[in-house]
Amino acid sequence: MSSENTLDDEDTFKILISTDIHLGYLEKDAIRGNDSYNTLNEILNCAKINQVDFILLGGDLFHDNKPTRRCLHSCITMLRKYCMGDSPIHFNILSDQTVNFNTTKFPWVNYQDENLNISIPVFSIHGNHDDPTGAEGLCALDLLSASGLVNHFGHSHSVERIEISPILLQKGSTKLALYGLGSIPDERLYRMFVNNQVTMLRPKEDQDEWFNLFAIHQNRSKHGPTNYIPEQFLDDFLDLVVWGHEHECLITPTRNEQQLFYVTQPGSSVATSLSPGRSHQETVRQFFIQDVVLADYEDAFMPETPQVMKKVENLCYAKVAEMLEDAERERLGCPLTPEKPLIRLRVDYSGGFETFNTSRFSQKFVDQVANPKDIIHFLRRREKKEDINWSAQMCHYEV
Amino acid sequence: MSSENTLDDEDTFKILISTDIHLGYLEKDAIRGNDSYNTLNEILNCAKINQVDFILLGGDLFHDNKPTRRCLHSCITMLRKYCMGDSPIHFNILSDQTVNFNTTKFPWVNYQDENLNISIPVFSIHGNHDDPTGAEGLCALDLLSASGLVNHFGHSHSVERIEISPILLQKGSTKLALYGLGSIPDERLYRMFVNNQVTMLRPKEDQDEWFNLFAIHQNRSKHGPTNYIPEQFLDDFLDLVVWGHEHECLITPTRNEQQLFYVTQPGSSVATSLSPGRSHQETVRQFFIQDVVLADYEDAFMPETPQVMKKVENLCYAKVAEMLEDAERERLGCPLTPEKPLIRLRVDYSGGFETFNTSRFSQKFVDQVANPKDIIHFLRRREKKEDINWSAQMCHYEV
Ligand SMILES: [Mn+2]
Ligand SMILES: [Mn+2]
Ligand SMILES: [Mn+2]
Ligand SMILES: [Mn+2]
Repeated sequence: MSSENTLDDEDTFKILISTDIHLGYLEKDAIRGNDSYNTLNEILNCAKINQVDFILLGGDLFHDNKPTRRCLHSCITMLRKYCMGDSPIHFNILSDQTVNFNTTKFPWVNYQDENLNISIPVFSIHGNHDDPTGAEGLCALDLLSASGLVNHFGHSHSVERIEISPILLQKGSTKLALYGLGSIPDERLYRMFVNNQVTMLRPKEDQDEWFNLFAIHQNRSKHGPTNYIPEQFLDDFLDLVVWGHEHECLITPTRNEQQLFYVTQPGSSVATSLSPGRSHQETVRQFFIQDVVLADYEDAFMPETPQVMKKVENLCYAKVAEMLEDAERERLGCPLTPEKPLIRLRVDYSGGFETFNTSRFSQKFVDQVANPKDIIHFLRRREKKEDINWSAQMCHYEV
Repeated sequence: MSSENTLDDEDTFKILISTDIHLGYLEKDAIRGNDSYNTLNEILNCAKINQVDFILLGGDLFHDNKPTRRCLHSCITMLRKYCMGDSPIHFNILSDQTVNFNTTKFPWVNYQDENLNISIPVFSIHGNHDDPTGAEGLCALDLLSASGLVNHFGHSHSVERIEISPILLQKGSTKLALYGLGSIPDERLYRMFVNNQVTMLRPKEDQDEWFNLFAIHQNRSKHGPTNYIPEQFLDDFLDLVVWGHEHECLITPTRNEQQLFYVTQPGSSVATSLSPGRSHQETVRQFFIQDVVLADYEDAFMPETPQVMKKVENLCYAKVAEMLEDAERERLGCPLTPEKPLIRLRVDYSGGFETFNTSRFSQKFVDQVANPKDIIHFLRRREKKEDINWSAQMCHYEV
């Protein structure tokens, strides 16, 4: 990319994640009728300005199962406006696309269609609001995928067993396995998990090189004994789960200590506009996450190096400062972005290293980040062999 | 074009005209549910095989104002399959496209959109079945035009006055002014015609060089004193009127002797499938029409030349034979096409020529054309200055 933004490097996926946009919500309301449309416009504009590699939608793009003509027309218009164009795409797809994209007669990613000039591919699972119906099992999203504007994935056609095949994406040296599962009634999916009817397939080769991201659209909080999906049901090889459907914004990834993956719950972009008489300004909070594997720095230090923890701490300072610089530089292109980004540095200290005092570390950044108490996450990745060169940016609308 | 078909010359518009496809008609019927879909598929396939320059639809593409998801999905899928691709487009548009295409945020013809690779542009007016509704005045066709699959034209946004601006198309030396008017309740349009509230705009320069084609979707037969549009209401500068809405097939152009234009009424492609228990095979009848202006042959004969009528008759024989050869050659590419084409030779005998006996002329072709009694049409074009180099092929489905 020609952006001056240093984050646009050839090994880093830059992803805009959004969910529960609920396009068409309250569209007949005289005052708030345009809110969901303005929000989608803002989201797509943000993706364009930031030159993301792709957009990942976590379901409920449409509020109504059968969106109105205005709603479909607006959506098509905005997607064509923002997601078509000449910017080149810098990643490849290595998986069997006929398995990944199984809801149209065009089972390939839209940007590889020789008749469409796509600048920002959108990948989306469906939610419960816009789920498939009828004998054909089509959902509103499929009108967009038939026109080549969206890549609908994660649609399981079987009620007997669910096999989730990832879209395998590679950008430079970074490998991203994108799993998705469109909304299924919670109690049914719960039962299927319990009966071992849900399988997440993994690439046969180089399994450890893949960053595994899973988009799901289910109840996360317990609405009844089997009326939600416990995080523990999900495979522990996952690295990050993007949880749609829950409208509360818990975007900062929380670690599931048992499964050792992170869960981000972006929340709905439209629920925030529910409070009457508000004068909210939609804004997008940056979120940067990066991994550091201490064992990879053997040239600089080893567990037995004198004052090793000081050296590790300095390395982490430098990494965070770098992310803050990136964030600042990028924020200039996106005027509505709040000043303080969310910053996360995951430090893999396996191989004999120790942890350092994170509260002291955080003091240094208390005025610069939105989550000062929570910057460093220590983890030990049992089978990890290589550095996963990965960072992500997630945009989310907040009041 | 690389076709071996000699009709694909650089000055001839090759147009597939179809109307009243009524996609989704009886789609829930267990037996006939697919008929309207198969028909559209056949029509588009015919357009592709014959490498037409464009498709002109006369309204009622959709049977229901709000087509089902299946219906929209099928339509989008078929249009993307047949109308996108690498075949180059050989005509230009000279008119102001923001005036021609006023129902989307993309007011230009789809094949000129740099993000879409269109092989067959579709131009369509709307019918009464798929007419605009709601505050936004959008019709189902506008979902297709927003996605860039169809060029919706002829939508008048005013109820006060209607100004019909033509799409000015040029292919080689041939100039085609394409007028369209989407369906309007007959009595209202009747009244507007009577009150001089309907204006057909003409290009300021070289008016006589344009072939003027008008697509309309109204009652043609009298359903009540003001519940139809008399042909006499239409401007007499028109050359050909494509009349949609009337489902009866009267595709052979009939001449309105008062206005001196021709009217073709293709009829519905789906009404024919109404008879129960039929085993019909959808077929496409070729239709060729060509103009001869005797005054242009001054090198060969003049009105005072000895035996001039014999020479004129021989010229006409040669022209018809040529069209039959073209038809035969073309038919080989389209296996379902019936053997006998419709042939029309319009002979402009103004400038002192006389007419010859057409029934004797027709004897020669009785086994070769579908309309032997009706091949030659004599006409005198009052203001005509130049030969209009025009021929058309119209496909129509017949039982
Ligand atoms: Mn939702
Ligand atoms: Mn939901
Ligand atoms: Mn009709
Ligand atoms: Mn009609």
